[in-house]
Amino acid sequence: MPLARADCVELDRRDPLAGHRLAFALPDGVIYLDGNSLGALPAATSARVREVVENEWGCGLIGSWTEAGWIDAPRRIGGKIAQLIGADADEVICADSTSVNLFKALAAALRLQHITGADCDVILSERGNFPTDLYIAQAITEYSGGRCRLLTVPGDEIAYHIDEGTAVVLLTHVDYRSGRMHDLSDLTHRAHLAGALTVWDLSHSTGAVPVDLAQARADFAVGCGYKYLNGGPGAPAFVYVARRHLQAMDADRFAQPLAGWLGHRAPFDFAPDYEPAGGIDRFGAGTPSIVALAALECGVDTVLAAGVEPLRAKSVQQTQLFIELVEDRCADLGLQLVCPRDPALRGSQVCYAHEHAWPVMQALIARGVTGDYRSAEADAAGILRFGFAPLYLRFVDVWDAVEALRDILATRAWDQAQFMARRTVT
Amino acid sequence: MPLARADCVELDRRDPLAGHRLAFALPDGVIYLDGNSLGALPAATSARVREVVENEWGCGLIGSWTEAGWIDAPRRIGGKIAQLIGADADEVICADSTSVNLFKALAAALRLQHITGADCDVILSERGNFPTDLYIAQAITEYSGGRCRLLTVPGDEIAYHIDEGTAVVLLTHVDYRSGRMHDLSDLTHRAHLAGALTVWDLSHSTGAVPVDLAQARADFAVGCGYKYLNGGPGAPAFVYVARRHLQAMDADRFAQPLAGWLGHRAPFDFAPDYEPAGGIDRFGAGTPSIVALAALECGVDTVLAAGVEPLRAKSVQQTQLFIELVEDRCADLGLQLVCPRDPALRGSQVCYAHEHAWPVMQALIARGVTGDYRSAEADAAGILRFGFAPLYLRFVDVWDAVEALRDILATRAWDQAQFMARRTVT
Repeated sequence: MPLARADCVELDRRDPLAGHRLAFALPDGVIYLDGNSLGALPAATSARVREVVENEWGCGLIGSWTEAGWIDAPRRIGGKIAQLIGADADEVICADSTSVNLFKALAAALRLQHITGADCDVILSERGNFPTDLYIAQAITEYSGGRCRLLTVPGDEIAYHIDEGTAVVLLTHVDYRSGRMHDLSDLTHRAHLAGALTVWDLSHSTGAVPVDLAQARADFAVGCGYKYLNGGPGAPAFVYVARRHLQAMDADRFAQPLAGWLGHRAPFDFAPDYEPAGGIDRFGAGTPSIVALAALECGVDTVLAAGVEPLRAKSVQQTQLFIELVEDRCADLGLQLVCPRDPALRGSQVCYAHEHAWPVMQALIARGVTGDYRSAEADAAGILRFGFAPLYLRFVDVWDAVEALRDILATRAWDQAQFMARRTVT
Repeated sequence: MPLARADCVELDRRDPLAGHRLAFALPDGVIYLDGNSLGALPAATSARVREVVENEWGCGLIGSWTEAGWIDAPRRIGGKIAQLIGADADEVICADSTSVNLFKALAAALRLQHITGADCDVILSERGNFPTDLYIAQAITEYSGGRCRLLTVPGDEIAYHIDEGTAVVLLTHVDYRSGRMHDLSDLTHRAHLAGALTVWDLSHSTGAVPVDLAQARADFAVGCGYKYLNGGPGAPAFVYVARRHLQAMDADRFAQPLAGWLGHRAPFDFAPDYEPAGGIDRFGAGTPSIVALAALECGVDTVLAAGVEPLRAKSVQQTQLFIELVEDRCADLGLQLVCPRDPALRGSQVCYAHEHAWPVMQALIARGVTGDYRSAEADAAGILRFGFAPLYLRFVDVWDAVEALRDILATRAWDQAQFMARRTVT
């Protein structure tokens, strides 16, 4: 373990991914440990967006839907994301938000269970799941007229609650708060043994940890474009559906409920009756923002250029370094590690509970170390959340961040400062 | 009526809106009669988008959600659109696509009827309604488990079919194909007399024709950001809900079905149970694209700067001029007017059926006159559709477009040319 800042400088010098930092436009004086909330700006994005706005839209006008390939963007970018999650290109489409895609996926999964006549009605999820996942599940149960219900249990008890009454297991792979990573493959297998389907939220996984949906025989998945994919604030999300389920939907000609015109078999026929497109195209809905998709594509390209496996290796190295430096230099300063210590069980983030987590984080941000604060479950202490995006994070940044944290805690700097109320978006 | 091109030049010279054309970045050599499909690029948009990308996202990173006002954008822009449709600022929010907002509005309207115990189950719509509206209604009936059904009738028979069995009247104000404009106020009144609610699609109205939702006591409405609002390809859409219905939803604490986290009362509390935000905020869902919203705002500003009433006056003048010039100069060339001759019954477009509508339109586009082609209902001839966006369209453009049309028809230029297959998006 490096014990001096110079050792971190040396780690950066030897880092095979170091050059990827140049593919980002990062502000001076900021150590950005919030790429799990909003990824940084790729250097290529601004010029590409300008090209789309000024040339494709401004000059090409309506003709750009075909001539500039706009109409193909959701599938083209979906195909790129597929490479990051172990899916085939024709199983992923970019569209709408994560919440809206969850609605489509969950409704389709329930419908598939219904069609096969399975006698199950429970959507099983985790009590601490990201709220929007639970909200969408609640809304679906509310609008289903009693045909399904939501059961939430602690994350480590999920496996024990999967049974023949379970219709769908709805889980986030990497927990947004604690960074704890579920065993996607094992839980999918258990769900299948019980006759259940799975809907995985990969928002905190995609681009950060290797995911192999094919190997796991996963059913449905969704994910976010603006975290580790660096697609920009509110970037379009994606939805994955296993080919065997797409084929079942083809055979039954059934639609997901957000049957917008771009999910139609032939949208430009302007036919009065909905006929779902074949395959993943049926998960399109309304017209997507082309400018937002262009920015997303630039972001996805930054991840593809580095590869998820090397990124994961560096992420494990950096999160371990952070934890060890904190243990070494911030002992007895009130921090309690609340993410798994074992990197195999952890996504690309490190979290600490602290009695004064909120003002401590504000003090860190004031010093240029941007992490974020998350309230804890129940009455526990708030959480300092540090995300690691190894595409642009240096080892020396890890050292400097821990130094700033140590100094703030040791001097109780957070106690003296006044901080503006500040909300952040995961 | 001007009979010479010079008269049109003179009309432009006297046009009080002529200067607004300078607020757009238009390509040379194009007469753009497709602003009803994709509005032109405002001159301010590119710089504003660049500011959002490079400074707000690139430098401000996660902090821009509050510091750059991102979190307020859906309501701020919704408030601006409200001014164009006779709504209050707190009745409109920008979010998602038109299709997705239709789903929210239609589901909420049906739910309101259900709560009040009304004994009605019919969604009444028009056979020729824009397909996505019908598709969403079909999906809602399919997923409702038989609790509602869709009835479509010819547009001019709507009034006769509104009865005590009607739960919701779902109509597009200005027809995308024919340009025919419904009497929004009268049909809303008839719906209310029968105990029905209305969902109006204002996609082809907003920014082009005056709409007064308050005066009409309209219930729900949605609309598109990328047509006359010039928000860019796939711009976010908007949804309007009358305050009395928002209050009813507040009282019953019920959510629209796409209960994403940004429609929660306190999204940053990360509470496990969905509690809808008060008022129109509950119609938010997932995280919206901030870049797309920034472009939309620039577009909406172009319309606000001119005002809808002056735009409508110029639109009527231009569409009448176009019709009269065609009558005068294209007589006996096979064109049949299929939009209402009376401007009071017509939106901001003019449409002609023609036996060879498709190649004629391709020939027009090749000469720099961009309109679009729409297939007709049933076996009728295809339609040449010309949209009039008076913010940037000159009277001389109207003259030149008719001249090009006359020449192509008279010389059968479309007959000799080979044209690439080309799809367009409304």
